[in-house]
Amino acid sequence: MNAIRDGWFSEINPMWPGQCMSLKVQNVLHEEKSKFQDILIFDSQSHGRVLVLDGVIQLTEKDEFTYQEMMAFLPVNSHPDPKNVLVIGGGDGGIVRELVKHPKVESIVLCEIDDRVLDLCRQYLPSLSSALDHSKVKVHVGDGFEFMKGHKDAFDVIITDSSDPVGPAESLFKKEYYELIRSALKKDGVLCSQGECIWLHLDLIKNMIDFCKELFPSVSYACTPVPTYPSGQIGCLLCSLSQKTDFKEPVIKFTEEEMELMKLKCYTPAFHTACFSLPNFAKKVQS
Amino acid sequence: MNAIRDGWFSEINPMWPGQCMSLKVQNVLHEEKSKFQDILIFDSQSHGRVLVLDGVIQLTEKDEFTYQEMMAFLPVNSHPDPKNVLVIGGGDGGIVRELVKHPKVESIVLCEIDDRVLDLCRQYLPSLSSALDHSKVKVHVGDGFEFMKGHKDAFDVIITDSSDPVGPAESLFKKEYYELIRSALKKDGVLCSQGECIWLHLDLIKNMIDFCKELFPSVSYACTPVPTYPSGQIGCLLCSLSQKTDFKEPVIKFTEEEMELMKLKCYTPAFHTACFSLPNFAKKVQS
Repeated sequence: MNAIRDGWFSEINPMWPGQCMSLKVQNVLHEEKSKFQDILIFDSQSHGRVLVLDGVIQLTEKDEFTYQEMMAFLPVNSHPDPKNVLVIGGGDGGIVRELVKHPKVESIVLCEIDDRVLDLCRQYLPSLSSALDHSKVKVHVGDGFEFMKGHKDAFDVIITDSSDPVGPAESLFKKEYYELIRSALKKDGVLCSQGECIWLHLDLIKNMIDFCKELFPSVSYACTPVPTYPSGQIGCLLCSLSQKTDFKEPVIKFTEEEMELMKLKCYTPAFHTACFSLPNFAKKVQS
Repeated sequence: MNAIRDGWFSEINPMWPGQCMSLKVQNVLHEEKSKFQDILIFDSQSHGRVLVLDGVIQLTEKDEFTYQEMMAFLPVNSHPDPKNVLVIGGGDGGIVRELVKHPKVESIVLCEIDDRVLDLCRQYLPSLSSALDHSKVKVHVGDGFEFMKGHKDAFDVIITDSSDPVGPAESLFKKEYYELIRSALKKDGVLCSQGECIWLHLDLIKNMIDFCKELFPSVSYACTPVPTYPSGQIGCLLCSLSQKTDFKEPVIKFTEEEMELMKLKCYTPAFHTACFSLPNFAKKVQS
């Protein structure tokens, strides 16, 4: 479990063989094996506090904002009236922190399977988790599959903030999961899922997009930089029940004033659009 | 000099304290201290052959194409008639390999200060360096400053493919260097320089853009993903002597057929435009 050696945490993993990101550790704050996964939280020398699940960096305080902002606003701003949002996973609270700022979002349910992630993030990562106490938010501890089975036709937007397809999140990368999302979405609903990395898992991504196209009339894929994720980028898989949805063009466009008020560090309407332009080798996932 | 330990090469460096990219080494092919820098070439387990200068990864065969294609085509396709191109640095030949494919580029001079980089890349990295023997190309071994002093009003495009601002490339990040480029460019000439990373060196970048604005009527900045560079992204600093240049909109737009013929793996006209949209926190470098 402990990947810390000579004062460095190293993210060696068979999902990205032969390459490894390391962060210098200042102080280990917590380590435990929960019912679902290994949890490690440490203060780093250069990237603030770091959350690691099953040996994989989930977030650093230095660069987590890109992931949270893009995962929240790519789908929400592609929906004309995103009142009710469900987040599956995301127990750190980062995506919820962004969603509560949104003027059109009225209610957010967070469904996290591992209550220890919730508890530890509340304790050690308040800059993310404090949003979980916002009046717009309800936190549900449980399995996303079970939760959606009991909530048909209930949400405008569903966001899957999962770890990689190994361990507790494995089933979140399968077609059955997307069928459940479809049934839990309202008419013209939109989903966004953590979509892995085009530099590492292009075939997995292509496969997910292919089965999503059987379920949703509009499917697209965007990439955004997250320096501490493997290969420095992460994808966002987007689907809509409305065939009118053009994900590249947000229907809700933040003004400069709104972005200032919301303290956005990454997301802008122009960056939203730009993230859908992929390097030539990866364009096949969109076609 | 040797940063290989337990079979991994690790890029620990004070330019990016607290973070480190590592690649698993299969076989070290060459190590030497040239007149200018430490040179290391190895075969990696996952990223093909790797070139390291002064302990910093310059390229891996797996992902070098993004850097080469963007550094070549962002400036060249922003110039209406890019006949004559000078590349300073870039002794591996990667940018030249892209330039020789371009239908409008007639002649390319490569000015590399370290003949050992040229020799070793010819020996170990033929997938990049073989372009140095193309009939459009002249290779000059020497200092870029001296070369440009003897070549006024000579080039349509000048590309600086340098290492980081420590060691032999330090002077290439100073105003005096850009004054020399200005004098070596023809009327309406365009330059592109390796522009470091917004996630690590935003102040350095802002400073460079500020002095470039004193020298050139059009200045812009793009980011492109390079997974094995620190923080997974690299910037391209672009300047033009023509105030009409809008770098976001290429004046030469490759067709699908041309991109196929040129075997482009990253660059497309849409990706060209997208790379100029920066995350909100970094937008200040462009303003």
